[in-house]
Amino acid sequence: MADAPYKLILLRHGESEWNAKNLFTGWVDVNLTDKGEKEAVRGGELLKDAGLLPDVVHTSLQKRAIRTANLALTSADRPWIPVHRSWRLNERHYGALQGKDKAATLAEFGEEQFMKWRRSYDTPPPELADGSEWSQSDDPRYAAIPGELRPRTECLKDVVARMLPYWYDGIVPDLRAGRTVLVAAHGNSLRALVKHLDGISDADIVGLNIPTGIPLSYELDADYRPLNPGGTYLDPDAAADAIKAVAGQGKK
Amino acid sequence: MADAPYKLILLRHGESEWNAKNLFTGWVDVNLTDKGEKEAVRGGELLKDAGLLPDVVHTSLQKRAIRTANLALTSADRPWIPVHRSWRLNERHYGALQGKDKAATLAEFGEEQFMKWRRSYDTPPPELADGSEWSQSDDPRYAAIPGELRPRTECLKDVVARMLPYWYDGIVPDLRAGRTVLVAAHGNSLRALVKHLDGISDADIVGLNIPTGIPLSYELDADYRPLNPGGTYLDPDAAADAIKAVAGQGKK
Repeated sequence: MADAPYKLILLRHGESEWNAKNLFTGWVDVNLTDKGEKEAVRGGELLKDAGLLPDVVHTSLQKRAIRTANLALTSADRPWIPVHRSWRLNERHYGALQGKDKAATLAEFGEEQFMKWRRSYDTPPPELADGSEWSQSDDPRYAAIPGELRPRTECLKDVVARMLPYWYDGIVPDLRAGRTVLVAAHGNSLRALVKHLDGISDADIVGLNIPTGIPLSYELDADYRPLNPGGTYLDPDAAADAIKAVAGQGKK
Repeated sequence: MADAPYKLILLRHGESEWNAKNLFTGWVDVNLTDKGEKEAVRGGELLKDAGLLPDVVHTSLQKRAIRTANLALTSADRPWIPVHRSWRLNERHYGALQGKDKAATLAEFGEEQFMKWRRSYDTPPPELADGSEWSQSDDPRYAAIPGELRPRTECLKDVVARMLPYWYDGIVPDLRAGRTVLVAAHGNSLRALVKHLDGISDADIVGLNIPTGIPLSYELDADYRPLNPGGTYLDPDAAADAIKAVAGQGKK
């Protein structure tokens, strides 16, 4: 057991093949692009340069986050640290939108519905039927999740609800033991965690974007609440530029 | 808990930078070469083609084995399985020979002494002093190993002694739970395990080589002893060729 402050680092995976193709991804298990791999390597270099060396890493079960963790830890010279994985760190399940083109979906359903699915806190898209093309209902990595728990669609509120048990039971004990913890995950599972840490309201979380590939560092007090609210990006200029660019994209 | 047979797969990392340079490596943390990376990818393809899909992976703390596991699991489409690491799966510590050129060492000490250090079961090389150039005494990844336990040199007998606790406490419980276990490690930590599994004598283990990059599959009975003694290489022809080549190299 160690005393606060505790050190937590969040890292969102870089560009994936479906980001590049403008498709809704969610739980579909796509690879990073070359650009995404470079972002991950750079993320690890930023950790190394800052002397912020993880003692343990937690990832989702999706290969774009796993690969990001592997590449970043390799470039930070820490590939040997203990690894833990959980589906609770997965990206938001995008329901029936998974596999659909974002522009086509916007055209089909109109901007109001489209933005509600993308950004509202508590409106999930329609469910994705088990066994359908982009469902993970038969994926062996999720075989240990009972059917009633396995998402078929999610809004951000659902992600908060299924992510928090892993925060409390999987990550906090590592912090409590004095370990610097790296969480390599996804835009929405990290937004869910940041919402919790920073106590962001349901309304305000809608406007919060986390840039890819730039480690976001938190120092936490004895109650696991930020001493540096909002966290500290290891490359603040690049983070500010990326946040602006994502905000612009959302308005397209 | 599951019934036997239990499934175990051993995978020795591919060519490292120091294999290619003919230096004694041991605990020095060198990278794979491009050839070594290709071997690891091929190893994962062999697993996938055989339908022998690991449910959990155990690696050493050395990056050549970690990278091998990551690459093989990626090409087998299983990068998401749980990961466990232990220094007890590390390569044999080569003591004062670490960092030395093999040909120069042979010339300096003569063939008898050289072969004794390389191959005898119970004669370790001289100890490597803490703090010296190729020592890992200050490496944070080994900080949790008390000084009296941390190797400064090892013969294969020493490797058997420090590896076996991890076999019993780390790996066997996964087998017992019915998981197909992949162990990604090193020539000598895997020789130590094979010696134990197959009950090979101290004399006979000297002549046993495990080829790099070719998964070696065991089915184990309820006592965790092989139903297929010696194991089954997933590419038997390549394994036979590689074993011949290594045996020839030992005679140089």
